[in-house]
Amino acid sequence: MSEKNRQILLISRPKGEVSPANFRLVEAPIPEIGPGEVLVRNHFLSLDPYMRGRMDDAKSYAASQPLDEVMIGGTAGEVIESRNPEFAVGDRVMGMLGWQLYGKNDGRMIRKADTSRVPLSAYLGAVGMPGVTAWYGLNRIVAPKAGETVVVSAASGAVGSAVGQLAKRKGCRVVGVAGGAQKCAIVADEYGFDACADYKAGQLYPDLRTATPDGIDGYFDNVGGATLDAVLRRMNAFGRIAVCGLISAYDGQPMPLHNFRSVLVNRLRVEGFIVSEHMEVWPEALRELGALVAAGELKYRETIAQGLENAPEAFMGLLKGRNVGKQLVRLVTP
Amino acid sequence: MSEKNRQILLISRPKGEVSPANFRLVEAPIPEIGPGEVLVRNHFLSLDPYMRGRMDDAKSYAASQPLDEVMIGGTAGEVIESRNPEFAVGDRVMGMLGWQLYGKNDGRMIRKADTSRVPLSAYLGAVGMPGVTAWYGLNRIVAPKAGETVVVSAASGAVGSAVGQLAKRKGCRVVGVAGGAQKCAIVADEYGFDACADYKAGQLYPDLRTATPDGIDGYFDNVGGATLDAVLRRMNAFGRIAVCGLISAYDGQPMPLHNFRSVLVNRLRVEGFIVSEHMEVWPEALRELGALVAAGELKYRETIAQGLENAPEAFMGLLKGRNVGKQLVRLVTP
Repeated sequence: MSEKNRQILLISRPKGEVSPANFRLVEAPIPEIGPGEVLVRNHFLSLDPYMRGRMDDAKSYAASQPLDEVMIGGTAGEVIESRNPEFAVGDRVMGMLGWQLYGKNDGRMIRKADTSRVPLSAYLGAVGMPGVTAWYGLNRIVAPKAGETVVVSAASGAVGSAVGQLAKRKGCRVVGVAGGAQKCAIVADEYGFDACADYKAGQLYPDLRTATPDGIDGYFDNVGGATLDAVLRRMNAFGRIAVCGLISAYDGQPMPLHNFRSVLVNRLRVEGFIVSEHMEVWPEALRELGALVAAGELKYRETIAQGLENAPEAFMGLLKGRNVGKQLVRLVTP
Repeated sequence: MSEKNRQILLISRPKGEVSPANFRLVEAPIPEIGPGEVLVRNHFLSLDPYMRGRMDDAKSYAASQPLDEVMIGGTAGEVIESRNPEFAVGDRVMGMLGWQLYGKNDGRMIRKADTSRVPLSAYLGAVGMPGVTAWYGLNRIVAPKAGETVVVSAASGAVGSAVGQLAKRKGCRVVGVAGGAQKCAIVADEYGFDACADYKAGQLYPDLRTATPDGIDGYFDNVGGATLDAVLRRMNAFGRIAVCGLISAYDGQPMPLHNFRSVLVNRLRVEGFIVSEHMEVWPEALRELGALVAAGELKYRETIAQGLENAPEAFMGLLKGRNVGKQLVRLVTP
């Protein structure tokens, strides 16, 4: 092949906010595959908040992204060469092939995606890691009963929108927290939440109180910070909080929490989780999510940047909440 | 009877710290009992941190202590008159008869105490509510395995000392946090903890780090605040935190928490509880605790104030950590 691979490397760690200077776009040969391996042309790259944590070298649940290597990332693409009998040229697959146009794998870390009823990109969103994240935190930690009130932050995002729709199907009152009137409108009108509080409107606690007249029984937290503090004040006895993300603290800002007392007063259970440690639920969750998406009963939005070279900027936008729904980068010409 | 009952009423709610002016000592007739009732002469009154919460009218897990009524409190005493066939004059009983010399009950809220092998006062401590609190939080929330490191705050107290000794029996490394060299010496030498960090020495985090070389797997929290913050920095993946008390915030001081991020990074489970909501474990817990105390295998200390009139001052001392072990008030002449 005369074409080259293109890759984005992490070349320095952010001091505070992520900057374009932390990345470098390079060319590289397209990898050659050996026996048992497949070569994949990536069509979509997934951008996710967890990547911010990997960019630091602080202690975290996962190893740091090494410097001068291809940025980690979920991808969905097409098999273009195969020396593995389980994969044929033309198969659509998802995997973790990173911020690059081409990647190879021995078949153990990629999975076929049935695109007959679900579009390929959804396997990076509602029928992928974000969807399973929503499914796990909601079903295994928040575990709401019909009639309870469930709140989710970053409600217009890939995870939050799925949390709310799944909770609604369980008969809960579902309230989102999102930034801006536009996102709140989407959360209420498109995803069918009962209400959405706009944290950028500057009166989160009163708005949340109005939206949760019976208090809050379950909270799916994607952001931490002031939103978590406000929610703690509204929690009911025996409430459950799934801690999935603390995006408000990713840049190392202090995130003092003032209402921790609620954990004792209301006998709360607060649990952090990372979905990749619960692989046992993926088949069940993906089956359910795939069926809902195929039937049009689980809605999602995508914000798609065009071209690998625009991935850093799209990622910075994601961390600032500029996207609506799942942030993707399309790596092929549309 | 010519003798009078004496009672301490709550007459105002504290603004910040508890003050003697919040209480009033009054005389009242000794209650007359009706059919099915028993009259108890209280020998010991238990003073406990939870009482501070009841003095406020803020939303909490229990109703506020009403003004101008006898302060709530656990008691141990002797039946001096009975119209209930299940109780005989001379029976030792424990109950919640409040800050007063005499109380009556219909028999449903008092329980006989076998003082043949366990002293009566222990039924307010290691073989009473504090002991069961330790037992529940340790066994049902922290649930440590042999070889894990368990930390407990207020380690010289009635609850903390029992937590540590029970964890030690499970083969854990046990580290206490207590205030002052004297308390730390008791924790290590008398209760057999592996180490004790003195938070008053002004370098809690480094001391805790030294005492927990393998990190912390379980934390039984009686205090919240800066101690909780320091512990959060040392937690291992999948650690468990039982939130039993937040004594550092009882007077309404802000208690900002800075290291909440650890809940996500380390996938912690944090759970608040109140032992009176888990009555199902009391028989099992009290059986185990009673056997250990009788065998001399569960040690405890008591700080005993003399006379009902000294209860308010003893209670204020408890909130400031002036007691060592279980704080009691003796209501009879020694």
